[in-house]
Amino acid sequence: MININSLFGKLLLTIGITGSMSACSVNPHQSSAISIVQQGNFAAGGKVIQSAGQFDDKQLFKPQGQTLHGDHASVFYQIPEHARPYPLVSLYGAGQSAKTWGTTPDGCEGFQTLFLRQHFPVYVVDQPRRGQAGQSTLAIEVPATTNDQAWFNMFRLGQYPNFFKGVQFSQDSTALNQYFRQMTPNTGVYDEQVISDAMVEILKKSGDAVLITHSQGGGPGWWTAIKSNQVKGIVAYEPGSGFVFPENELPEPMPSATGTLSATPVKMADFQKLTKIPIIVYYGDNIPTEKNAYAGQQNAGQDNWRVRLKMTQLWVDKINQHGGQAQLVHLPDIGIYGNIHFPFSDLNNQQIAELLSQWLHKNKLD
Amino acid sequence: MININSLFGKLLLTIGITGSMSACSVNPHQSSAISIVQQGNFAAGGKVIQSAGQFDDKQLFKPQGQTLHGDHASVFYQIPEHARPYPLVSLYGAGQSAKTWGTTPDGCEGFQTLFLRQHFPVYVVDQPRRGQAGQSTLAIEVPATTNDQAWFNMFRLGQYPNFFKGVQFSQDSTALNQYFRQMTPNTGVYDEQVISDAMVEILKKSGDAVLITHSQGGGPGWWTAIKSNQVKGIVAYEPGSGFVFPENELPEPMPSATGTLSATPVKMADFQKLTKIPIIVYYGDNIPTEKNAYAGQQNAGQDNWRVRLKMTQLWVDKINQHGGQAQLVHLPDIGIYGNIHFPFSDLNNQQIAELLSQWLHKNKLD
Repeated sequence: MININSLFGKLLLTIGITGSMSACSVNPHQSSAISIVQQGNFAAGGKVIQSAGQFDDKQLFKPQGQTLHGDHASVFYQIPEHARPYPLVSLYGAGQSAKTWGTTPDGCEGFQTLFLRQHFPVYVVDQPRRGQAGQSTLAIEVPATTNDQAWFNMFRLGQYPNFFKGVQFSQDSTALNQYFRQMTPNTGVYDEQVISDAMVEILKKSGDAVLITHSQGGGPGWWTAIKSNQVKGIVAYEPGSGFVFPENELPEPMPSATGTLSATPVKMADFQKLTKIPIIVYYGDNIPTEKNAYAGQQNAGQDNWRVRLKMTQLWVDKINQHGGQAQLVHLPDIGIYGNIHFPFSDLNNQQIAELLSQWLHKNKLD
Repeated sequence: MININSLFGKLLLTIGITGSMSACSVNPHQSSAISIVQQGNFAAGGKVIQSAGQFDDKQLFKPQGQTLHGDHASVFYQIPEHARPYPLVSLYGAGQSAKTWGTTPDGCEGFQTLFLRQHFPVYVVDQPRRGQAGQSTLAIEVPATTNDQAWFNMFRLGQYPNFFKGVQFSQDSTALNQYFRQMTPNTGVYDEQVISDAMVEILKKSGDAVLITHSQGGGPGWWTAIKSNQVKGIVAYEPGSGFVFPENELPEPMPSATGTLSATPVKMADFQKLTKIPIIVYYGDNIPTEKNAYAGQQNAGQDNWRVRLKMTQLWVDKINQHGGQAQLVHLPDIGIYGNIHFPFSDLNNQQIAELLSQWLHKNKLD
């Protein structure tokens, strides 16, 4: 059956919004409109600070005696019809906002909408001190530092200005423009504990959920599961920092071209909480390994991920050694090539979503 | 007919998300789930700066030779089934993000969802250098200044800590907490021209549209209609700055307890563009007028709006004198009392939405 509204949507997607960009793959779940039962936003967690003195309502903007609400997360959620039991709560990486889970750089549907179509409630988070949750209890300087090329290399699109051969990223300049404009700065000091505290409060509102984390979001993701028993599973795309290990079982620090990666010590009782839930970690392509030689200084952006992939292998082994159910999927090892640091918004993101759907199903999380 | 999903949605709204807060009014349009044909995000407008020198891929984060994409807007849009012809493109006020149009402080549906239910495509904007569009080409200090009480008074909830009698704002502490946490800082210098430039680019993607502006968003809203012929109407809630007048027909500056309000001079040809489209401006309650006496220094937050209401009356008269179709609605004058600075998210926001629906209909914008 041909659904007129779906066709209309496709036309809009191709002509109205994405302009000259390539058409998106047909989504097998995109046979009709999405039925949303409820959607909205809320703030979660955070704290309140107060300046000494007395509020003077004749001098409104003197800070004395006034309070400031900050350090909360801001969440947009959508609950579809026939909702599955566990929402997907997603937390992005460095320099990103909840937009990361929306439209892909080449104008196709991101995980937020792809999983809504599969009837998962979705909660996309702006973490404390970022994006729409910008109000921080600590001041910060936001520099306007030029660094697009650094991220191009670091996020493994290629070696600027050249894309990697076969990379899963559109080489239409519109896509790169959109991609660079996803970046948004911290508006306060980055703090895994502040973020995970707010995530715990989000879960109280969403109910038991599966966390999807990306890159820098990996660390706060582990901490959320340590602090809350409402995390029923974690899917981590390319965790970049905050690798928690039992304090007496730390791996050796790992030097790389972007600095030395060290594990974060935690109490064994905390680490063991991560052994109680299913966890899967995905890494994309163009990461040097022992097999394909040290990329080194000349490919610093890639070398950054060599140690993170290696650290994750040790971490997964450690979780499983303590009775857990963690799995590392290095995508090229299962025949999926060309993914950058953002597999969930790459050209093949429907294939990546399908892997996740299968994992959720296998672990009875759907 | 009773729709089970709608009932489920109501239950979630009451129990799952809003916790102990009061139930929301029944929405006559809320008889079923919302069918979304398409939704997503995009960046619009902005510029690219570049540091002098040569990019060195062995020292990734040295700024030399690198670019930075900044000063764009970031937009989340939703297109419902059976979409009406003109999208509503909304731009918030000082210290706010696109969240302003989402869930109200007391946990009910905001304009974003209310108008989706009425089959309007909605585009909620984070303006350049705010929220998810945080990447700026100019550095800034983000202070963590305590100022909740200032906003409480300025936004006319009352005289802190007392609410105005009959105010359209929940006195449940949860609502005030959510409200304060909507605030998010500028991440670059506020600039009406940068913002309206990006708005023009949004309209190229949305197609011809009706602008809904709030407070500080008023000024960039007028500029958008001056720069683009795609604005088919403007609805301004409590414009707070950027009152554009023909350069030779400026009103006298207006002193108030929060400073002197001056008009912004523009060329007559630019001003005349605003006479070609229907415009409506709404102000809420508890604004002193000539009739009810000067509030003065002791109620500075209210006095701020006395001059803005007065300036708007002159502005509307000026538009109409030059052949335009502008209208000012001071809500208490039509028997609607208690609205704060955010009528669209107040307790009676469905009534406020209904007024807007009627105006859109009357002006053939629906």
